[in-house]
Amino acid sequence: MRIGFTGSGIDRADRHRLDESRIAELASSLSARLLRLAALDPELDETGRLAWGSLAEIEDEADLIFLGLAGETPLFAPLRRIEGGQRAWAIFGILGSMAPEDAALWGAARSLIEWHNRHNFCGRCGHSTEVFRAGWGRRCTNCGLDHFPRVDPVVIMIAEHQGRVLLGRQPQYPAGRYSALAGFVEPGESIEEAVARELHEEAGIRVSNVRYVASQPWPFPGQLMIACVAEADSDALIIDRTELDDAKWVDREGVRAALAGEPGAPFLAPPPFAIAHSLLAWWAGEGA
Amino acid sequence: MRIGFTGSGIDRADRHRLDESRIAELASSLSARLLRLAALDPELDETGRLAWGSLAEIEDEADLIFLGLAGETPLFAPLRRIEGGQRAWAIFGILGSMAPEDAALWGAARSLIEWHNRHNFCGRCGHSTEVFRAGWGRRCTNCGLDHFPRVDPVVIMIAEHQGRVLLGRQPQYPAGRYSALAGFVEPGESIEEAVARELHEEAGIRVSNVRYVASQPWPFPGQLMIACVAEADSDALIIDRTELDDAKWVDREGVRAALAGEPGAPFLAPPPFAIAHSLLAWWAGEGA
Repeated sequence: MRIGFTGSGIDRADRHRLDESRIAELASSLSARLLRLAALDPELDETGRLAWGSLAEIEDEADLIFLGLAGETPLFAPLRRIEGGQRAWAIFGILGSMAPEDAALWGAARSLIEWHNRHNFCGRCGHSTEVFRAGWGRRCTNCGLDHFPRVDPVVIMIAEHQGRVLLGRQPQYPAGRYSALAGFVEPGESIEEAVARELHEEAGIRVSNVRYVASQPWPFPGQLMIACVAEADSDALIIDRTELDDAKWVDREGVRAALAGEPGAPFLAPPPFAIAHSLLAWWAGEGA
Repeated sequence: MRIGFTGSGIDRADRHRLDESRIAELASSLSARLLRLAALDPELDETGRLAWGSLAEIEDEADLIFLGLAGETPLFAPLRRIEGGQRAWAIFGILGSMAPEDAALWGAARSLIEWHNRHNFCGRCGHSTEVFRAGWGRRCTNCGLDHFPRVDPVVIMIAEHQGRVLLGRQPQYPAGRYSALAGFVEPGESIEEAVARELHEEAGIRVSNVRYVASQPWPFPGQLMIACVAEADSDALIIDRTELDDAKWVDREGVRAALAGEPGAPFLAPPPFAIAHSLLAWWAGEGA
């Protein structure tokens, strides 16, 4: 199964992160490369691949994130300050044409940069934090608490009932778009419990036999998408209109038509880099 | 499969959380109950069940966490300040005898209380935050940023090779204890990628065919444990001694003996409320 934002193929080389002299050595290597970003979005070269520059392009080594090793090549990203308005979603126009390994590598960098910008201060004591672990952590300058990059687990799921799956549309979706329902996993619940709770909250259905299908990191800003399928007891819906514009049941033929982009399809499918697309392709028997 | 810290059976009633008057109404109901805690640990009644008190026991309604509805009964937990030394691990002595639904309910409360105590200040601007969403969020009093409870996804896995599984022991384990290897999912990787990375980092093995088995919330302080199994290419180990005291391969007979607590077993099994126990029981063919 093809899953977006996975398969960077690099060695994250966690073993070097706490070794400041080793990181400095890697950063001063002639082969070291720095990810080129326009605000948070990737710069692409003339072949459509990620553009990389030299480490000389950065002002302060303290602002480097060590992404890992591509073979022998050390890869870094700049730890940018994010200003308002830099999250302009032009990226969604080019993601479909990016090489999968490039999207994965850039996605990791984007998630880390977002995380740093939301953790300049210590949640426990309110004092400023500073980067450590080669960009994979922040430490409080006052109380010494270590902070590690946050990843939010999200369940994204289709419920099945008599050969049809439940899809919903959120208010901000493009016209015609329907996708799998989704929600954040809360403290004190398993993946399976979160799937059942979300489907009941948003669509009023009860489900059983929740099964895991696949997972994906989602860099907007840093979710772990956990794709599941469940069996609905009934197809009677009670839609939570504060969460969803609409929800409906679609059969395999309709899902296949949507994934193929056919004009008469019952909905506009989510893009191929979203795990909802992979999940629907798996269910429709095209991606399993 | 029996999984610890799941199955509270309550309705979390997310729909009421932002409705302050509804929460106040529930809190003033005669049937409302307040979870009794000794520091962070549960108080148990004479039958060994969670002890509950009246809402009159709390000084300020702003310090309430709304856990949800057990049938018609509104359940709350106190939002405690945690002082140093209150994380005394006596709880591990009683978890084995607690009713599963009680452990699940208490675990959710404990995770939330820990999270509040680490998020008194806004990570973005450093100013103080205050509770909202009936205890399921904090809002910055300065920049207005909303903060939601953090759940850290962790992969916990066994690698298989020719009828044996890989187990490791961490330095802090009790004597003889071995368990599944585990590690935090990082930004920019899927569950399957995290499993492969952690097994390579900690044990030096390469794996394929990573499969999800089950999941569990772990309230120390707030992880989502994601249990998987993978196939190892080889049984040659390179153990990372900064992470593990030891690692070894154990066959089904050995795993069964350990789970049964037999004196001659090759290792001391993790406790039944840990998902590593469920994972090993599933693999040994006893819990599938």
